[in-house]
Amino acid sequence: MEKWRATSNLRRSLKSILNRQLSSVSEFRYLNEKRSCQSSFNLIRDCKSLGQVNAIQHRCFSSASTLVQRNPSFSTLNSDDISYFKGLLGEKSVIQDEDRLETVNTDWMHKYKGSSKLLLLPRSTEEVAQILRYCNSRCLAVVPQGGNTGLVGGSVPVFDEVIVNVSSMNNIISFDKVSGILVCEAGCILENLISFLDNQGFIMPLDLGAKGSCQIGGNVSTNAGGLRLVRYGSLHGNVLGLEAVLANGDVLDMLGTLRKDNTGYDLKHLFIGSEGSLGIVTKVSILTPPKLSSVNIAFLACNDYSSCQKLLMEAKRKLGEILSAFEFLDTEAMNLVLHQLDGVRNPLPASMHNFYILIETTGSDESYNREKLEAFLLSSMEGGLISDGVLAQDINQASSFWRIREGVPEALMKAGAVYKYDLSLPVEKMYDLVDDMRIRLGDLATVVGYGHLGDGNLHLNVSAPEYDDKILEQIEPYVYEWTSKHRGSISAEHGLGLMKADKIYYSKSTETVQTMASIKKLLDPNGILNPYKVLPHSLNS
Amino acid sequence: MEKWRATSNLRRSLKSILNRQLSSVSEFRYLNEKRSCQSSFNLIRDCKSLGQVNAIQHRCFSSASTLVQRNPSFSTLNSDDISYFKGLLGEKSVIQDEDRLETVNTDWMHKYKGSSKLLLLPRSTEEVAQILRYCNSRCLAVVPQGGNTGLVGGSVPVFDEVIVNVSSMNNIISFDKVSGILVCEAGCILENLISFLDNQGFIMPLDLGAKGSCQIGGNVSTNAGGLRLVRYGSLHGNVLGLEAVLANGDVLDMLGTLRKDNTGYDLKHLFIGSEGSLGIVTKVSILTPPKLSSVNIAFLACNDYSSCQKLLMEAKRKLGEILSAFEFLDTEAMNLVLHQLDGVRNPLPASMHNFYILIETTGSDESYNREKLEAFLLSSMEGGLISDGVLAQDINQASSFWRIREGVPEALMKAGAVYKYDLSLPVEKMYDLVDDMRIRLGDLATVVGYGHLGDGNLHLNVSAPEYDDKILEQIEPYVYEWTSKHRGSISAEHGLGLMKADKIYYSKSTETVQTMASIKKLLDPNGILNPYKVLPHSLNS
Repeated sequence: MEKWRATSNLRRSLKSILNRQLSSVSEFRYLNEKRSCQSSFNLIRDCKSLGQVNAIQHRCFSSASTLVQRNPSFSTLNSDDISYFKGLLGEKSVIQDEDRLETVNTDWMHKYKGSSKLLLLPRSTEEVAQILRYCNSRCLAVVPQGGNTGLVGGSVPVFDEVIVNVSSMNNIISFDKVSGILVCEAGCILENLISFLDNQGFIMPLDLGAKGSCQIGGNVSTNAGGLRLVRYGSLHGNVLGLEAVLANGDVLDMLGTLRKDNTGYDLKHLFIGSEGSLGIVTKVSILTPPKLSSVNIAFLACNDYSSCQKLLMEAKRKLGEILSAFEFLDTEAMNLVLHQLDGVRNPLPASMHNFYILIETTGSDESYNREKLEAFLLSSMEGGLISDGVLAQDINQASSFWRIREGVPEALMKAGAVYKYDLSLPVEKMYDLVDDMRIRLGDLATVVGYGHLGDGNLHLNVSAPEYDDKILEQIEPYVYEWTSKHRGSISAEHGLGLMKADKIYYSKSTETVQTMASIKKLLDPNGILNPYKVLPHSLNS
Repeated sequence: MEKWRATSNLRRSLKSILNRQLSSVSEFRYLNEKRSCQSSFNLIRDCKSLGQVNAIQHRCFSSASTLVQRNPSFSTLNSDDISYFKGLLGEKSVIQDEDRLETVNTDWMHKYKGSSKLLLLPRSTEEVAQILRYCNSRCLAVVPQGGNTGLVGGSVPVFDEVIVNVSSMNNIISFDKVSGILVCEAGCILENLISFLDNQGFIMPLDLGAKGSCQIGGNVSTNAGGLRLVRYGSLHGNVLGLEAVLANGDVLDMLGTLRKDNTGYDLKHLFIGSEGSLGIVTKVSILTPPKLSSVNIAFLACNDYSSCQKLLMEAKRKLGEILSAFEFLDTEAMNLVLHQLDGVRNPLPASMHNFYILIETTGSDESYNREKLEAFLLSSMEGGLISDGVLAQDINQASSFWRIREGVPEALMKAGAVYKYDLSLPVEKMYDLVDDMRIRLGDLATVVGYGHLGDGNLHLNVSAPEYDDKILEQIEPYVYEWTSKHRGSISAEHGLGLMKADKIYYSKSTETVQTMASIKKLLDPNGILNPYKVLPHSLNS
């Protein structure tokens, strides 16, 4: 009976669907994230570290303690240094103003705070090179900074590191409409690049909630994932070249604009995702896909996780070339959104379902793509994979579907204390962790699972009325051990930064981490670039 | 008038098109390449180097001289070494038989030949690790070898290096039908993986003419490009993880099966495309796309190169998600094929055109994809980009179209002497080099341009009745300098190997090459892994 009701429900929706564009969906998401960040601000303010001592202890809600000592081999800034930088960059690009320093010392979530006394704003690769050459010779530690939107404390100083912010390097250097290859400076804000490309009929292969602030150099340096990864793949595939300045000031010109280039080791990949600890990315060359005009979104229900998996497999096969998002949330996530957020309703209201799926398609032909999605949904429903579903009929419906999925973090923050984990796991194992965590925690807390199913990226969240060490002890290190046992990643897309530098062994072997450390030592012998981050503190010092 | 004729010609073809599958197209290509290799064999045999001396000079048709000295710090194999390897691997995996050594000492094109006295056939990562640990301690040089199908002398010894061939490591370890992630050993033959996946409803994201012999470990180690790159991108995007053994025997387990993993430096990329000079790849994890059932092929004519470019841009936009090949050849290439190969005819026979384009689409819906391609072709013709064109009506026509494009190398070999260059260039500049070369060579030789336009990969070939130093002097170093000036790559997909190790500076900066050399020194301090290859000989010794 349920199946028939659902099918007719879906059919009604299909019939009335409108042929409209959904271009503002991503802007919508961004506003959501900003709001959610605002909510978390007050919660987190209490635990921020001030960083003006020689050892700081980060003890925030969702992570065990981390003790970091200032590396005594680093020099302390003196007046000669300031004079040198003023001579090099000019007065206006050497910032010592306390208010401005307060901003760049503090991360986006207000969770980490450094005590740097100097912000430098180079305008060219050569200026970056001269800054690093000088800092290296003086053993002054440096934090490379872009839009400062990272979530793991990677883009702010831990102590008194000099902040080198590349915001002033924000020129688009070239765009080739035949190949779709964009070359630009590292400080270009992602949203500006998206707008520029939109006028050219192209899109960026990555899109993030933080696009209004984040910069392409930071995106590349952190290997940002985002909303389009399931369709366009990671930056390792899309970045064709880059220019990076090493700690000693040497400039590595790897700014190729070629899809194929097998001449020696492809060193650019070392700088993609190394979080500024091997060099400062100053220019980027990136392959951009043509903009496709047709976007459709469906919101579906599945009875069990196995059906979600099968639906993903079918979607990859049957929607293949037009699939652009495959997101999921469980019934606990839906309950939270419905209870905590105003104006949100379940588009499948007849009864609560165990799992909800959001599917987005993007293609070049509106009527065909809609028909294709409709046919896929009907066959999935007839095959029993979907228990109910609706297709967005206009941009408002589409936005309301995304609002549910994107509203989960905000709902979690409103519900009280939350322990957050961003994990990659094999899709078939992913939800077992949520089930195991529920058994483990019992009545102590609510366990919520949602995320980018298409990418194997689970956002595991544990929600409780208030923070409690008993809960944390039940979660950690269990969640990391579980992830490690299933060859998952303890950081799917956020990086390690300061927050998880010591947890790298849960996802990487000893030999691999040792090799990373030896490459760090080779490229940055004094360890001045983004110290205390990425690699374990035992290897960093 | 011409346009109308062409349009009606195309319309006739469109009307009669049949709904058939083209699954055997790639097999067809392979046979062609084998045949072409066979033809080239006799031509090249005369110039092969025997390599049993301490300095060998490679002086083959399309390249200037390269002098290589045996590194005197390498040991020479002795009976204790043989005993050790027999104890480790067993008698059958330690090959000293002259006939078998002849085969593995000689490259696929019979252009390079080493004088190794020992072939080792490990069956496990641990055996590879023990071999390398031993060789490193004894300072015995090693050539890692897979299917030995490389074209730049990278997979055979230069002197007496021990050959470590991973053919016996050919197990499929796992395949996840939900995520499409395949994990296998390095010695798996590409064609076997393609067959395995075909049964599962998936495809490999790369396909090569040499698939019947080449192995996935070699594909990854050389960052093989192939026929599907325009659609699925490079191996840097598709390889999710790998396991590699370093020169000292350390095993780096980076065999992740995750689409997202930002935990530290992504070291696997160092081993993708480093041609076995940093480590031996022993296992690979790769993301495989679902198999799509609908393939369509069009053969088109353009009046000028500018139209080819515009057509590519339009194809990316309008065919976007289903475009799977965009190949081109010029009229000289077509003339050669028509004159040199039996049974080949121009499917657009009314008059000779300046450029020919082969477009292939692959999608999940036969009737829609065909209609989409038809609509694109009609609009391109009406817009004046195409001067004539036909759509394959059945598998035989499709094969005959591919036969033209794939027959160019064979036709060139039959025509006499040929100087071959495999270049990546910005698409808008690519054909200028062909024009420039024609002016430069005048009546001395015929200049032919063809290749993977969709990837910016030009195959520049200079054809002459016989080899002549005057011709070579006109081509080199001009072609490399020209490529360098336009920030192109002197090796699009073949790698540098022995052949182009000294030419790396045409495509990479001094600082970048120095950094490559320092990473080589870090990971392989004794330089035992694939010596004399990839990096300039001045840095290799």
